[in-house]
Amino acid sequence: MNDTAPKDPGCEARVRASFTAQGLMRTLGASLVRVSPGLVEIALPASPALPQQHGFVHAGAIASIADSAAGYAALTLMPPGAGVLTAEFKINLLAPGIGERIVARGRVVKAGRTLTLAQSDVFAVHEGREKQIALLTATLMAVEGREGVSD
Amino acid sequence: MNDTAPKDPGCEARVRASFTAQGLMRTLGASLVRVSPGLVEIALPASPALPQQHGFVHAGAIASIADSAAGYAALTLMPPGAGVLTAEFKINLLAPGIGERIVARGRVVKAGRTLTLAQSDVFAVHEGREKQIALLTATLMAVEGREGVSD
Amino acid sequence: MNDTAPKDPGCEARVRASFTAQGLMRTLGASLVRVSPGLVEIALPASPALPQQHGFVHAGAIASIADSAAGYAALTLMPPGAGVLTAEFKINLLAPGIGERIVARGRVVKAGRTLTLAQSDVFAVHEGREKQIALLTATLMAVEGREGVSD
Amino acid sequence: MNDTAPKDPGCEARVRASFTAQGLMRTLGASLVRVSPGLVEIALPASPALPQQHGFVHAGAIASIADSAAGYAALTLMPPGAGVLTAEFKINLLAPGIGERIVARGRVVKAGRTLTLAQSDVFAVHEGREKQIALLTATLMAVEGREGVSD
Repeated sequence: MNDTAPKDPGCEARVRASFTAQGLMRTLGASLVRVSPGLVEIALPASPALPQQHGFVHAGAIASIADSAAGYAALTLMPPGAGVLTAEFKINLLAPGIGERIVARGRVVKAGRTLTLAQSDVFAVHEGREKQIALLTATLMAVEGREGVSD
Repeated sequence: MNDTAPKDPGCEARVRASFTAQGLMRTLGASLVRVSPGLVEIALPASPALPQQHGFVHAGAIASIADSAAGYAALTLMPPGAGVLTAEFKINLLAPGIGERIVARGRVVKAGRTLTLAQSDVFAVHEGREKQIALLTATLMAVEGREGVSD
Repeated sequence: MNDTAPKDPGCEARVRASFTAQGLMRTLGASLVRVSPGLVEIALPASPALPQQHGFVHAGAIASIADSAAGYAALTLMPPGAGVLTAEFKINLLAPGIGERIVARGRVVKAGRTLTLAQSDVFAVHEGREKQIALLTATLMAVEGREGVSD
Repeated sequence: MNDTAPKDPGCEARVRASFTAQGLMRTLGASLVRVSPGLVEIALPASPALPQQHGFVHAGAIASIADSAAGYAALTLMPPGAGVLTAEFKINLLAPGIGERIVARGRVVKAGRTLTLAQSDVFAVHEGREKQIALLTATLMAVEGREGVSD
């Protein structure tokens, strides 16, 4: 893993302020657990708000926190003032989302000037044990000088 | 598109019942607009529950309805009793989710015995005009004989 | 499909010259069949140079022509002087590559200033009949002002 | 990484025999460097047979060895007699393929009965230094009892 020198010493405050502005994270009940340069962790307690039709956490809810974790991991390494947008992501679902809590850990694979590649490993925590349930791979784009798009 | 002969004449009722069980769709405020063999449309009115940090609809919310639309399009062509699970999906985000409403139209590209490939075209509707904002490609798995997994 | 107004009237000549420089296409035996704004078709006759272990055309050979077809479809809509690079692609393999010939048809889904989304539909031609065997989705990047990277 | 207990003690011989049958690997000039349970490495010397139009190794050639490395990593953990097919893969290209040699290291992320998730990290080796140039994520399918499809 490389390019993890933080370009912005206030990266945690920056990510926390941006996360608070994500209405969807509040709607889902997600919270920001950890922010460090190139690494961001988001947790999501299971709730009746989240299932698909078989009672498992919906792939869309899993993808939502995994995308945010990957995006914010990328943002920690972007220059101050740049905003981050997801250009595309892919998620492989390895096992049903069953447990008390879903945790997504985003990490930067390669930080570039325009495009950053990040991955999120997603785990279900059931009776204290973690099991990997998904892997997301995302291309994030740094956007500078566009009105309304920062952090 | 091919293999679109409906294997289950009650496919609309089947999809509607399954959709109602998806807690996440209710949480987001999504509704099922149209169901026909190999084609499913889901709509999502913009609301303060859905944005990412810049005020656009969050990629995770877009992916959630696009994944459900693709999955249900696949389900319409699966044998009665089979359940559908998403094995993986990829989404390309083409433009910010800005508008009164987001619409995802899922369609089957190739229906197979075990794996089905489906795509969802996602549009933002703004002042009555549609603009494509995302394209999702999903691999859906038909699951038979597994307790708790049907439709 | 949109944004298909050709920005370069000489787009066919441009793509043909670039294709000729792709050593890999020559190695595989691929040829350029058709070039029009936003659409490029590449054909690959089956040969003992191409199989994977079961005798089907290798997914890598299928991906190679599908990536080139998508990339050149994108290039036809880029400004003169810009070079095209693949940022990422995803390919779903729907059926084994069996037949006399593989054909990849690339088309632009959304042309953007920096990023273009394109897809290639890939068919195996067997005894005169076409069967879709793969679908590739690619993000192409326009690169300007970088030495050695044009077309 | 998990589930890496080899199910077939002869996994190296099995992969070597299968690799030899891949005409495309011979065409490209690729060789099998290392095989162990859940891990396979393939090397590809740069040559005039491989470039795209700017002289870099073509994304299709990179994807070809990365797909084979991921597929064979999956095969090492499949039961004897099962054949491996790629259902889909996604590749992110991080830097141009420039160097004396390209190396793809495939590893299993999650081995399942039907579907296995594997990734390949791809490096360019230039003047003795490795630089990551791509990341491939693949879904591999175990096929049993289908004529002509084993290993």
